[in-house]
Amino acid sequence: MPGAEFRAAAHRLVDWVADYLENTDRYPVLAQTAPGALRRQLPAQAPDDPEPLDTILADFERLVLPGVTHWNHPAFFAYFAITGSGPGILGELLSAALNVNAMLWKTCPAATELEEVVLDWLREMLGLPEEFFGVVMDTASVSSLCAIAAAREALPELSIREQGLAGRAEVPRLRLYASEQAHSSIDKAAITLGLGLESLRKIPVDADFRLRPDALEAAVEEDRRAGWEPFCVVATVGTTSTTSIDPVPAIADLCARYGLWLHVDAAYAGTAALVPEYRHVLAGCERADSFVVNPHKRLFTPFDFSAFYCRRPKTLRAAFSLVPEYLRTPEDPKARNYMDYGIQLGRRFRALKLWFVLRYFGRRGLVERLRQHIAWGQEFAAWVDAHSDFERLAPAPLSVVCFRARPRALAERLARAEIPDQKRIESYLDQLNEALLEAVNATGRAYLSHTRLRDRFTLRLAIGNLRTTAPHVERAWALLQEHAARLDNERRPAAWR
Amino acid sequence: MPGAEFRAAAHRLVDWVADYLENTDRYPVLAQTAPGALRRQLPAQAPDDPEPLDTILADFERLVLPGVTHWNHPAFFAYFAITGSGPGILGELLSAALNVNAMLWKTCPAATELEEVVLDWLREMLGLPEEFFGVVMDTASVSSLCAIAAAREALPELSIREQGLAGRAEVPRLRLYASEQAHSSIDKAAITLGLGLESLRKIPVDADFRLRPDALEAAVEEDRRAGWEPFCVVATVGTTSTTSIDPVPAIADLCARYGLWLHVDAAYAGTAALVPEYRHVLAGCERADSFVVNPHKRLFTPFDFSAFYCRRPKTLRAAFSLVPEYLRTPEDPKARNYMDYGIQLGRRFRALKLWFVLRYFGRRGLVERLRQHIAWGQEFAAWVDAHSDFERLAPAPLSVVCFRARPRALAERLARAEIPDQKRIESYLDQLNEALLEAVNATGRAYLSHTRLRDRFTLRLAIGNLRTTAPHVERAWALLQEHAARLDNERRPAAWR
Repeated sequence: MPGAEFRAAAHRLVDWVADYLENTDRYPVLAQTAPGALRRQLPAQAPDDPEPLDTILADFERLVLPGVTHWNHPAFFAYFAITGSGPGILGELLSAALNVNAMLWKTCPAATELEEVVLDWLREMLGLPEEFFGVVMDTASVSSLCAIAAAREALPELSIREQGLAGRAEVPRLRLYASEQAHSSIDKAAITLGLGLESLRKIPVDADFRLRPDALEAAVEEDRRAGWEPFCVVATVGTTSTTSIDPVPAIADLCARYGLWLHVDAAYAGTAALVPEYRHVLAGCERADSFVVNPHKRLFTPFDFSAFYCRRPKTLRAAFSLVPEYLRTPEDPKARNYMDYGIQLGRRFRALKLWFVLRYFGRRGLVERLRQHIAWGQEFAAWVDAHSDFERLAPAPLSVVCFRARPRALAERLARAEIPDQKRIESYLDQLNEALLEAVNATGRAYLSHTRLRDRFTLRLAIGNLRTTAPHVERAWALLQEHAARLDNERRPAAWR
Repeated sequence: MPGAEFRAAAHRLVDWVADYLENTDRYPVLAQTAPGALRRQLPAQAPDDPEPLDTILADFERLVLPGVTHWNHPAFFAYFAITGSGPGILGELLSAALNVNAMLWKTCPAATELEEVVLDWLREMLGLPEEFFGVVMDTASVSSLCAIAAAREALPELSIREQGLAGRAEVPRLRLYASEQAHSSIDKAAITLGLGLESLRKIPVDADFRLRPDALEAAVEEDRRAGWEPFCVVATVGTTSTTSIDPVPAIADLCARYGLWLHVDAAYAGTAALVPEYRHVLAGCERADSFVVNPHKRLFTPFDFSAFYCRRPKTLRAAFSLVPEYLRTPEDPKARNYMDYGIQLGRRFRALKLWFVLRYFGRRGLVERLRQHIAWGQEFAAWVDAHSDFERLAPAPLSVVCFRARPRALAERLARAEIPDQKRIESYLDQLNEALLEAVNATGRAYLSHTRLRDRFTLRLAIGNLRTTAPHVERAWALLQEHAARLDNERRPAAWR
């Protein structure tokens, strides 16, 4: 692409992006489209001849944009709300322009060293110990997979790297533990690593959705007696459904006692520890063998950026390092080659965007924004608590609130109803809340997601976008009340009125 | 970041990027730095207070840039030369601004459907069959890992997903095959999947570094007799060292006969099939069970973008799909959720950049550029062949040339020397070529990498950057001749003069 053409197009695109970011509010948060709608509008084959960039950009706006769910919208409250911040986007632009592969120190020394630096900065801000070795991964799915692979490698007598798990009488069935509320990526890691889903034992949680250490200990004891080899525990700081925080200190005690690798999945909630009054969320994590936190979740860094820390880098390296001749460099003895610490050989220059974000906002700026999001989360939880037609379904330790509509008249009926009636009412409430979610999302003015807690369909509101303001949260709450009342009015059986 | 501030900063940055791309030639290709140089210049902690974006950008130029190895430089000839093209960079900028997570159809319908569309376009351009289901991965490391996981899942009677590999008498040791020249990511996949390095049997290659089907067949037979269960063969189209192309038709026959999953790693060379006269590089690949090609390698798409195709999507899905409640959507029955087909839950909107690239260049534009790169590769190979002080060490089917300096006098001596003498001369040639590589790279005017072929230190020149022109290739050749002559003159023992 000729320089002048690139320059002109990039300036136009930057104006488009700036307009977009200033006006995300004008778009429906959730794409108002149906499966196949975009696909049907696009040709079945790539064009033979070059097309002008203006045509491509116009098609982007006309065809692609209506099918975009706007994660950078201030009223995106689904899953974990995230932010592609201004400085983060600029960092990504630079990375794309440089297009380096940070597999070896030599293939981009600055990418390797900036990765070391920003991960050290982040580690220090989170109050984690200096011996935590950091490496940037794409996602927590991959970070946790690598953690469990390292845990497996920490049983050197089994020689799993060389000989594998199959067909060897000397390799016992290995057991991995996580709470019932742990993320599905742990299940996926168990599959991928050849351990199998059965190797992952799900530990019951307490009333606040936190792993129960007593149940964990009982499970480990029982498994040992049954011939399993327990080797790893995954504790979660900020579970996906409710952001509950497992009791890491007690779990760490248990891991120490039984010689188990402790991996902490703090992908979502870890960054809360930047806020002094929330530092406690990482209590005990200093004792972990490995730890993951995702700046692309709550640290305003464009997706993807997962910060993985390991106290035992030699073990992590033993699990993954392979150096074919074509990847040897004379600098190997004195430089760090990040390819040695994970699955992917190719590695983007992700450190740049986090460096931009950390410097642009500064520690204070980050703390202030995180604190604000938590405050809004608490406020929203209080609104739910105070409303007689809604109820909260889980504690809200941070800025995610789990709740449902439960009209007062039905709550009263539920309290005194017989079991068959309760079941019917619960089933009605499930349908009501499912319809409520669809109705609010269909307005395009807020986007929430759901989960299921104690078998109840549960709405989740997650605050985390930098562009969110108090009126966005208020509007979401108003929409929820309005549509809940309407839907309940339309749907509730006459007998329950 | 206030809108006006973002807009102004982004325009400044775009000018910087445009200047950079027009003048990459002014930078040394290989960073002229030493381990720790950048790290030492950066503070040990993140700043407490926000810093102006101008300061951050100035630091980027002053501190980071000198540590960058310029993969987007026209004289980057190392590893596999790649390009972050103009349209690709603009696509990345948009992706970063939208910051969507394409895990589910619903979380960004356009990202899912554009992914389907561009992968269909690419598949059609490569002449692969319609039943190949496509999914975008980050790297070929992950694509091949997923392929082998699917191959493992294609043995449903073993119930590996549920029960894993360990401690089960009914699970035999599984055997995977690839040539001695296959990429290290296959070894890494064998480790990660719990199969172990020993499960990967490396098959000898022929004189042109291609997997020998007769040796593969003998190995499979021998393994069966010894109680292994052969399950998968990885053929390579474009090996990393020499870009040799395994005889896929014969391998596919063999896989059909023995019931083995055929995965083709065409990460580098697959895109050559866009060029009609090079379509043959993919002969037989239409029979593969899975196939990977990387548009971020030779299709001018910024890193990362690996296109993974699978003929048996149900098996791939069976290997990876896990749908916790919080990821269910009402659209699940009719929409594709790409999270079901791989390891990572979080997925970037990568389709956008490839869509920009394919439309901006058009099929003809891509073919023309690929053809030019191959032509230069052939020309360079001819220069080496014609020079009495150099020799080629492998066929150059595409645009990667493997060669070394081998001064004529030594070649003559080698031809008539006794074995002890040959060893000394080979050892001298290894050192000479290693020094030659360092010397040329140290000029900053070209960057090559190396490999080892038949135990000889081998230089590799790879052409693949869009900004490369004939003079860049000529200059690299001139530098090689000049430094080889100088180094040989300085270093050759008097006895061999």
